[in-house]
Amino acid sequence: MITKKLGAQTIAFAAPPSIAGHANVVGKKEGDGPLAGSFDLINQDDSFGEKSWEKAESAMQKLALSAALDKAKQSVSVLDYIFAGDLLNQCIGSGFAMRGQDAPFLGLYGACSTMAESLCMASAMLDGGFGEWAAALTSSHFCSAERQYRTPLEYGGQRTPTAQWTVTGSGCIILARDGNGPYVTHATIGKIVDKGIKDANNMGAAMAPAAYETIKAHFQDTGRRPSQYDLIVTGDLGKLGSEILFDLFHKDGMDLNNLTDCGTLIYDLEGQDVHCGGSGCGCSAVVLTGHLLNGMRAGRWKNILFCGTGALLSPTSTQQGESIPCICHAAAISCTK
Amino acid sequence: MITKKLGAQTIAFAAPPSIAGHANVVGKKEGDGPLAGSFDLINQDDSFGEKSWEKAESAMQKLALSAALDKAKQSVSVLDYIFAGDLLNQCIGSGFAMRGQDAPFLGLYGACSTMAESLCMASAMLDGGFGEWAAALTSSHFCSAERQYRTPLEYGGQRTPTAQWTVTGSGCIILARDGNGPYVTHATIGKIVDKGIKDANNMGAAMAPAAYETIKAHFQDTGRRPSQYDLIVTGDLGKLGSEILFDLFHKDGMDLNNLTDCGTLIYDLEGQDVHCGGSGCGCSAVVLTGHLLNGMRAGRWKNILFCGTGALLSPTSTQQGESIPCICHAAAISCTK
Repeated sequence: MITKKLGAQTIAFAAPPSIAGHANVVGKKEGDGPLAGSFDLINQDDSFGEKSWEKAESAMQKLALSAALDKAKQSVSVLDYIFAGDLLNQCIGSGFAMRGQDAPFLGLYGACSTMAESLCMASAMLDGGFGEWAAALTSSHFCSAERQYRTPLEYGGQRTPTAQWTVTGSGCIILARDGNGPYVTHATIGKIVDKGIKDANNMGAAMAPAAYETIKAHFQDTGRRPSQYDLIVTGDLGKLGSEILFDLFHKDGMDLNNLTDCGTLIYDLEGQDVHCGGSGCGCSAVVLTGHLLNGMRAGRWKNILFCGTGALLSPTSTQQGESIPCICHAAAISCTK
Repeated sequence: MITKKLGAQTIAFAAPPSIAGHANVVGKKEGDGPLAGSFDLINQDDSFGEKSWEKAESAMQKLALSAALDKAKQSVSVLDYIFAGDLLNQCIGSGFAMRGQDAPFLGLYGACSTMAESLCMASAMLDGGFGEWAAALTSSHFCSAERQYRTPLEYGGQRTPTAQWTVTGSGCIILARDGNGPYVTHATIGKIVDKGIKDANNMGAAMAPAAYETIKAHFQDTGRRPSQYDLIVTGDLGKLGSEILFDLFHKDGMDLNNLTDCGTLIYDLEGQDVHCGGSGCGCSAVVLTGHLLNGMRAGRWKNILFCGTGALLSPTSTQQGESIPCICHAAAISCTK
């Protein structure tokens, strides 16, 4: 049976996988923000006891995976698949976190869309009948991202008004083929969208058109209306990107009043000097595995559309004058099947 | 229905997807090697008409995708998914190749295992009922890899005896839910194996134990014997890594006399100054989409086990003194379902 219409981008899962556990780990700045109460572990020392920022990022992934498994009352060896990725060159945050994990591993690269991509892929593997348990995992670290994408922290570079602040954090979801929800009911896989933005400090503007295309495809494919979701959450367009996305739908005669963004939720935009908000794979991962899923479990929201956005640039592509290819993958999460 | 046993690593596809098209593109050195007759396009100029090596790599991916679609008599818009990845930082080879491609894109990072990983994932998506057509695509480029992982070419660094030569090439497979084969019948997803090798110029030794674990898991999960395959092909252990893999099985009382390696097949190891052989995502991709699949179509082989091996290191992890986490994913390809 084909559960995706010809030419469509959305899979409607026949047996929606259940979110059996979710957990996150963040650094000090995230712990000082408005979502502090939704984090499982807030570390005051962003090194997480490691000697390098890259190793700290791997340590966060291991902590998030372990905590999520704990909540699902499972051990790593039950996992049929771990889908993970991060922003570091050659995804070493994930590759090194996987050492010693007794589970099949599939590495992804979707930049800041990785939480959504891994959730969509893990859901597909379980719905497809290829296993009982899967993990979706990602991370980012302010200090490793700054020195890799921009300049080492010691340089003290000035940030532009459109810049976003890379979240130090890792989030993990454990999916089960059977369970009591919340359920991943749909996955909409994005296409690359590149509208010619070349400013690597303005990711929100670059990624907003990709979010627009994927969300529009989701509505077209499913016949759903925006009002059927309590929240449509992008991750992470930031303040400017969110405004652009709102405007793009407004031009179509559609006001998305339930639109919000992980990058604007995670920090106090006025008080924490983060300019346009949070970013990085870890941003949408920790907001989803904390604030959003906790809220669903508490009955605050019944249906959300989680839209991970990624900017697939590198410092090399920027230096070579290239514009930024962007992508957005969306997962519909519901308290009922 | 679950088509993977509990605790196993191997999916036995209920409706094995068919390889509807396969094509490859290589540079001059690969075109001078023993497999020249199996390449669709040999470019004498490794720049592929582009201004940078990174852009050349994207150009190769676009050419390979287009040629494979042409052989499958399809256009890109029929594709339900493109799975692609490469070795470049933030996988820009793939991300930029996907600009303007009208198809959902899922980015992977599996280092040199990417051809196997993308083939396994694309097969799972079709067998799972999530679409009709999918592409598996990857590339590597000697010049972009050298300057990223080691030193710029102009530096003229001396190569160690255990070094492998990164293949300049891209390979693509178009999978169809229905077709006349060859078919992808099984996918064995690997776990990370790290035996403590720290020498980034000795990938074969680092990756051989990962290949050993995945191939062993494949036999355990399926109950198959090595002799049921005409070829067991790793990609890319090179000469030294292949010998280690043979020895590991020999210690178990099993002589894999049908073992071969894409890295030793692609070059003339004596005459082309490549030391231990070829490597890079493109190596196993172009050998699979040329020599191996052409041979299957010509009736030379009926069953092969294609085992992509990846070393998930980065220059940063090497500089920080870390050993190399490795992985191997295997796809069983057969002329009959």
